[in-house]
Amino acid sequence: MNFLHNSWYCVGWSLNHGDGPVGIKLLNRELVLFRRSDGTIACIDGICPHRFAPLSRGEVCNDVIQCGYHGLEFDGEGRCVRNPHGSGTIAPNAHLNSYPVVEKSGAIWVWMGGKGAADPAEIPEFDFVHDRKNWAGATGYLKIDANYQLLIDNLLDLTHATYIHANTVGVGTDKWEGETRIDYDFSASGKVINSDYIWRNSPPTPLLREFSERSAGDIHVPMRLYLASSLILNIAMCDRGAPPETGDQMPSAHLLAPETENTTHYFYAIARDDKLDDAEITARMIKLVEQAFVDEDAPMIEDIAEIMDNREFFAMRPLILETDKAAIHARRTLAKLIRNELDNTASPTDGAAQKKVEESA
Amino acid sequence: MNFLHNSWYCVGWSLNHGDGPVGIKLLNRELVLFRRSDGTIACIDGICPHRFAPLSRGEVCNDVIQCGYHGLEFDGEGRCVRNPHGSGTIAPNAHLNSYPVVEKSGAIWVWMGGKGAADPAEIPEFDFVHDRKNWAGATGYLKIDANYQLLIDNLLDLTHATYIHANTVGVGTDKWEGETRIDYDFSASGKVINSDYIWRNSPPTPLLREFSERSAGDIHVPMRLYLASSLILNIAMCDRGAPPETGDQMPSAHLLAPETENTTHYFYAIARDDKLDDAEITARMIKLVEQAFVDEDAPMIEDIAEIMDNREFFAMRPLILETDKAAIHARRTLAKLIRNELDNTASPTDGAAQKKVEESA
Amino acid sequence: MNFLHNSWYCVGWSLNHGDGPVGIKLLNRELVLFRRSDGTIACIDGICPHRFAPLSRGEVCNDVIQCGYHGLEFDGEGRCVRNPHGSGTIAPNAHLNSYPVVEKSGAIWVWMGGKGAADPAEIPEFDFVHDRKNWAGATGYLKIDANYQLLIDNLLDLTHATYIHANTVGVGTDKWEGETRIDYDFSASGKVINSDYIWRNSPPTPLLREFSERSAGDIHVPMRLYLASSLILNIAMCDRGAPPETGDQMPSAHLLAPETENTTHYFYAIARDDKLDDAEITARMIKLVEQAFVDEDAPMIEDIAEIMDNREFFAMRPLILETDKAAIHARRTLAKLIRNELDNTASPTDGAAQKKVEESA
Repeated sequence: MNFLHNSWYCVGWSLNHGDGPVGIKLLNRELVLFRRSDGTIACIDGICPHRFAPLSRGEVCNDVIQCGYHGLEFDGEGRCVRNPHGSGTIAPNAHLNSYPVVEKSGAIWVWMGGKGAADPAEIPEFDFVHDRKNWAGATGYLKIDANYQLLIDNLLDLTHATYIHANTVGVGTDKWEGETRIDYDFSASGKVINSDYIWRNSPPTPLLREFSERSAGDIHVPMRLYLASSLILNIAMCDRGAPPETGDQMPSAHLLAPETENTTHYFYAIARDDKLDDAEITARMIKLVEQAFVDEDAPMIEDIAEIMDNREFFAMRPLILETDKAAIHARRTLAKLIRNELDNTASPTDGAAQKKVEESA
Repeated sequence: MNFLHNSWYCVGWSLNHGDGPVGIKLLNRELVLFRRSDGTIACIDGICPHRFAPLSRGEVCNDVIQCGYHGLEFDGEGRCVRNPHGSGTIAPNAHLNSYPVVEKSGAIWVWMGGKGAADPAEIPEFDFVHDRKNWAGATGYLKIDANYQLLIDNLLDLTHATYIHANTVGVGTDKWEGETRIDYDFSASGKVINSDYIWRNSPPTPLLREFSERSAGDIHVPMRLYLASSLILNIAMCDRGAPPETGDQMPSAHLLAPETENTTHYFYAIARDDKLDDAEITARMIKLVEQAFVDEDAPMIEDIAEIMDNREFFAMRPLILETDKAAIHARRTLAKLIRNELDNTASPTDGAAQKKVEESA
Repeated sequence: MNFLHNSWYCVGWSLNHGDGPVGIKLLNRELVLFRRSDGTIACIDGICPHRFAPLSRGEVCNDVIQCGYHGLEFDGEGRCVRNPHGSGTIAPNAHLNSYPVVEKSGAIWVWMGGKGAADPAEIPEFDFVHDRKNWAGATGYLKIDANYQLLIDNLLDLTHATYIHANTVGVGTDKWEGETRIDYDFSASGKVINSDYIWRNSPPTPLLREFSERSAGDIHVPMRLYLASSLILNIAMCDRGAPPETGDQMPSAHLLAPETENTTHYFYAIARDDKLDDAEITARMIKLVEQAFVDEDAPMIEDIAEIMDNREFFAMRPLILETDKAAIHARRTLAKLIRNELDNTASPTDGAAQKKVEESA
């Protein structure tokens, strides 16, 4: 399995999480989450050890989840706290694993690696989902039938927007010349990879046109990957040559959680810093974003996954273009992190994490 | 394959079987059944030896089934009796296997083991399906995407009714104390396993409330498994401490026929001994039973089958509770019977059957 | 894989092919076809070498197909002619294979074998699809979930029409006696196999009744297979004993293109030589043909494919009837041709083709 366990994965948006149990498969493992009366969220193994029933079919009461099949009860640490049958004995193998959970940036994050290595500071910080005073926007979810790395590839190489997203989130031309050009910058540091575009002297994308009044300018498109698979994109449209902070802001989040080798949870959010009270703009924005992800990206990426048919990417000898730099770097870094994790010999890309992995080893 | 061949399996309800051919896959083998003019039912291999067409797509005429593809004809003993083409030669490999069939207790039963071992006395005897003078009720059918043993597990441990069937066939409480308690008795003899509950001083289940006027009493719930996979449950609700025959009777049949390792035919029947003329009660009862099986049991059991993903039950190291006694005994006995059958060294659980298995060996 | 590459396969009807790209999987390989401005059709590999996107999701402009994901452009010979990114470098592994394409007999034909062996003269010649002055009729397409050889079996042994197509394209009796009889002739020469029936003194089929006024006569049913998998059937209904050219003509084409081992493209056409202006007859004819193929043949053949479950036909020890002669000969000839192709030692069935295979080897 090609997964990095020592990483935070988004498993849902905070505001969508009520009190009931929510099941999710992550890195090929069934989990169940539920909110406790103190407001914190618990995450434990999602399968009852008795008859392998999914605990998400159970009920939560008094910070305890009861299996919906034969009534065994588990607390948020995974301890079996009640067997309602016979003498009520609870055997040592009745207990389940629990997993660190953090709510941050409006999302719920789970860590499936060594518990000692779980540092919430590694979770990307952004305010545009939960801060509705300064941002208007929406969140969404999509299940994609493809390996998560195909989605990272997609997001780190936004040149595809020109061809596939001309009517939604792209500008639809690849004839850049003279003053109208693409500036590109790639950089990487530890577990963060930047793939930054500036579309110079560009018309706005259909999505930007929904609230920006600029008919032309520089569009800053800095995609940032926090490995394993969380991406933040702080788009800004500004006057030609002006710094991005002076422009119309349109940040978005693209939080990928591998479900299995061939399926991925895609939690996304979009926001804007202008015309905050206009709900119709928000509705049209989310509609354009859904069109881009559901109707444009997903079918293409799922076709590719079907064509690849579980073959390894590099083994298929892809034609590598200059624009693949960030995506290839991400694949190689991720492969190295996964190898290290499997070898149990920690040599991650930054010192702090190394120490934590060693502790957990 | 984890099947017991020397066993009778229900393949349908008598009243639903007209004259035309009916195909069914049983123990991973395609069969076809059709009724002859003398009223008996024939069961032969369901695949034409010529071009492997399913004979259930054919037609029956004069006690002979004609293949719907190229017209070969077979009698109820599987003999090819006509080749309509060319010189009409019938080669020795044109003939098919036939299987013993018995109609008993309102159902059709097939035996796929050694023919000499087929003793109809082993078929469970009950009258509540075909005797509509003394019983009102209905029959049903459900295909379940799970190994049949997961259904036996479900039926032998009725403590699950409390959690999953509170609104249909369970009473919905696991807080038994004092006079209100569960008495349980497990016993086994040869190929019969009993898992008997008495819910003392209990309210009626929603299903019993449909015709019983008792608002409280003892509910006798004696589940009986006839190995491999036929179960009869003679529920009776009576006054506290009274013997079950004095109460309201609500018998049911749960006849499981393994289709493949991962799919099961579930033929069920429910009946009552009171208010026989009230068709509305019957309609509401069958609706509650369908809800219990289709909406409550099936999704849970199919989820479990998906989670088990063809892994062997004991190899998954389940947490075994006291209430698993009957189900575990059934699994172990079944495994032993199957092993014996495979070893071709007959050591079944009763003398009469042993003789027959030896004859057939 | 059980495919003959040195063969022409129909991949569509000419009149249905516009200018846009059309993807088709043939012999387990993804292809894309598009029409050039000079009217010819190009066929190249259907998967972009960069990120494995299906080129059929792209767009055609100026005789070039542009990948819909990141914009690489390919001409009709498969050459990558533009990389719109960065320095625009085109690496040697950016190019794709192209395949010979011919339009003939109203259909589009592709050759996936050695290019030197591609001789359009081997494509069956018929005029009843494109010559609408002399013929009325229609074309159709069906995807079948079965190996293509099961469809060849079906078409070479038309005795099945009696049983499965009594209400559409068969006459529905197998009681032939005296003057009412079937004459049959089998012959083979090189890559052509003939399975010729004459139904003597027969009523018309429901399909013939749509335009023929004969209430009885001889129905000539000469099925001709052009290996690998193109079949032409020139049905004629005439007066008893008269030669076929004097009768009502009803030719049909059955052009099979293996998509994968388990799925087949079925391009079919039907025509008549009488009452050419009556569009209602044409509509009723195509409806009967669809009924025969979609409702009668396809479910039977797909059931058989499921029953065979990828097992090899002869390994299943089928009962072989006299009427299987042509189909068995076709399977054996095809197996030999495929073996020869794999051995790379050319010994095909005619000298001209042999030379070409050697050239391509």
